[in-house]
Amino acid sequence: MLIAEIIGVGSELIRGDTLDTNTAEIARSLEAYAVRVDRTLRVADDLQALAEAVREAWRRADLVVLSGGLGPTPDDLTREAIAQALGEPLELDAAMLERIRAFFAARGRAMPEGNQKQALRIPSARWLENPRGTAPGWWVIREAKQLVALPGPPAEWRPIWAELLPQLGLPPAPRVRKVYKTWGLGESTLVQRLGPLARRGDPALGTYAHPDGVHVVIEGTDPAATRALARSVRARLEAYIWGEDDATLAQTLLRRLEARGGTLAVMESLTGGLVTSLLTDVPGASRVVLGGVVSYSAGAKARFGVPEAVLEAHGTVSAEAARAMAGAVRALFGATHGIATTGVAGPQPLEGHPVGTVYVGVAGPDGSAARAYRFPPVGREAIKLRAAYAALAYFWSQT
Amino acid sequence: MLIAEIIGVGSELIRGDTLDTNTAEIARSLEAYAVRVDRTLRVADDLQALAEAVREAWRRADLVVLSGGLGPTPDDLTREAIAQALGEPLELDAAMLERIRAFFAARGRAMPEGNQKQALRIPSARWLENPRGTAPGWWVIREAKQLVALPGPPAEWRPIWAELLPQLGLPPAPRVRKVYKTWGLGESTLVQRLGPLARRGDPALGTYAHPDGVHVVIEGTDPAATRALARSVRARLEAYIWGEDDATLAQTLLRRLEARGGTLAVMESLTGGLVTSLLTDVPGASRVVLGGVVSYSAGAKARFGVPEAVLEAHGTVSAEAARAMAGAVRALFGATHGIATTGVAGPQPLEGHPVGTVYVGVAGPDGSAARAYRFPPVGREAIKLRAAYAALAYFWSQT
Repeated sequence: MLIAEIIGVGSELIRGDTLDTNTAEIARSLEAYAVRVDRTLRVADDLQALAEAVREAWRRADLVVLSGGLGPTPDDLTREAIAQALGEPLELDAAMLERIRAFFAARGRAMPEGNQKQALRIPSARWLENPRGTAPGWWVIREAKQLVALPGPPAEWRPIWAELLPQLGLPPAPRVRKVYKTWGLGESTLVQRLGPLARRGDPALGTYAHPDGVHVVIEGTDPAATRALARSVRARLEAYIWGEDDATLAQTLLRRLEARGGTLAVMESLTGGLVTSLLTDVPGASRVVLGGVVSYSAGAKARFGVPEAVLEAHGTVSAEAARAMAGAVRALFGATHGIATTGVAGPQPLEGHPVGTVYVGVAGPDGSAARAYRFPPVGREAIKLRAAYAALAYFWSQT
Repeated sequence: MLIAEIIGVGSELIRGDTLDTNTAEIARSLEAYAVRVDRTLRVADDLQALAEAVREAWRRADLVVLSGGLGPTPDDLTREAIAQALGEPLELDAAMLERIRAFFAARGRAMPEGNQKQALRIPSARWLENPRGTAPGWWVIREAKQLVALPGPPAEWRPIWAELLPQLGLPPAPRVRKVYKTWGLGESTLVQRLGPLARRGDPALGTYAHPDGVHVVIEGTDPAATRALARSVRARLEAYIWGEDDATLAQTLLRRLEARGGTLAVMESLTGGLVTSLLTDVPGASRVVLGGVVSYSAGAKARFGVPEAVLEAHGTVSAEAARAMAGAVRALFGATHGIATTGVAGPQPLEGHPVGTVYVGVAGPDGSAARAYRFPPVGREAIKLRAAYAALAYFWSQT
């Protein structure tokens, strides 16, 4: 099996100031081929360290993929490091320099001096054009090995890589992979329920806890055996599975609602706009989501139609308030359905309720309902995220 | 300077099913010492790959830190890999085995067979006790080098590492680090403006493009020289710096507004709740943020007080609409200030405007203003994020 090594370039990746998600995404894209990725690296913006990493990777691997370090600033050193590791000179490509100048000219700007180095390449590198930025990539083929240098921003490297990957001549060896996304069972309860289906080997089953529930991943090289395992898992977990593979909770429930001609409005308190934002991440959301309100201040809930009597009798952090909020926002926007959240994101308790107390309300043509959640005090942003997914999952379970 | 190499163990880290944040956290903890971390690795649960990674790290570095792979299952291979890499045998420690049995007994359970291997160590390893789990760590000192193997779960490795780090005998050499966060200059323009201040070496200056603007990081071992460089950078970029170090844009503008006794309301179209969500990530946001509305459907803007005449004359995607929205939501909530976003997140153009067209409106006691942005078509979620930060940054620049 071929070996690939993936290097994320940038001191900010080592410190975690920027989360390195590029190397993982590139590793996943190689799973359709007979290529093993048994390590990924993050390397600092340091010429010696980077050149050494490239040299070692070039020795170990058949395919080396780098992302980052192709920018115009002095700490963008990927070009220099590859040249040094592969023992080739850097040469200025006049035609590429013109294209970079043109990129700036099209935006009414002169090219800063620093960008000149983006037109440098080693003799064995071909250009990978980057229509979305000034940093073109490199594709090196030498000694039956390949090296690819991609820019760091996902919006720039993704289209380049998508076009290049099928051209690398890697032997296809599709692994069959099925992901079931569940809500409503804790990870260990779910594993217990799966019994002997939770196995390693080929096919293998893994479980991963995410904010949108536990994902069950079944993967194997034998299509029939893998699909058989997947079917058994599906049968065992049926009632808890909300989606498969790349589905998102927001997308799943918007599609279901759209198929029924429904529309949706959201009133958010502790989630502060996050539920509506997750929903509007879905392309075409505007056909279903009519709008939302963030009723973050004391008076705002009443202003948007929540009966003051409910708030006074039960408090703003209550199942009754959540139901009333969902009903009120449904009426406000004239939507068929409403979702509402209220609770305590922290850091301080509220109205005697501890941090992590959350109520989700839903309303529809057949009435309204609410459910209480109690999340551990894992931090304000994490509680907002869990509450937002709980709201989507509860709505999904009720419609 | 000593060299440290940090290895995160686990196939799920390579694929990104679990985000590797351990290596970054360990790297940051070493910044108080004269230790360079110029690479971190993620290595698969594969004995050969892991042993090779340890062997290479042991050759290159003075300190090797591993996290993960100390569990009881067949894919926990860190112990075997270190033994193989360092050429030492694994030996069962009867006393440790008793302690692991006792850990289970204290929870009323018998020790599963698999946990026995957690009592294995090589002769040169000392135990690192783990009161929160069954996986003790290893501390190896040999040939004037050190290797530390920690369990993977942060709740388990953090206390072990906190206690061990000061005992490693690393020369203290606190680095001075200053981060300036800017808005309004592209990365290459900013570097040009910094001229010779943008330098490598010690102290060094690096620039990093983030959705909330370009971050300028100054770091060095000589406090006086580093602070002098930071002061020069600050003077050169003054007008563009919105925050320092750990500040966030939302936090910065909420603090400024609170200090003036101001309050804020938000009307969002293309950002779909994301601006309000970023604002409400800040603890204590409720003292300033009165609420928000997501006017995602055609009629919703008018319902919340945006004059229909403005929408008809200029369209919903226009500077005039953005200004009117900011003014309307300010009035709706009785806030001193309003922010509004309108534009095209895609994937389809809207009312003749291409994807990436964004208008931000702000309103306050002194009137209203708006600004146009044109982002490249980098995808719906990325456009939402850039637009949301543009809204916060524009508001910051205007107040």
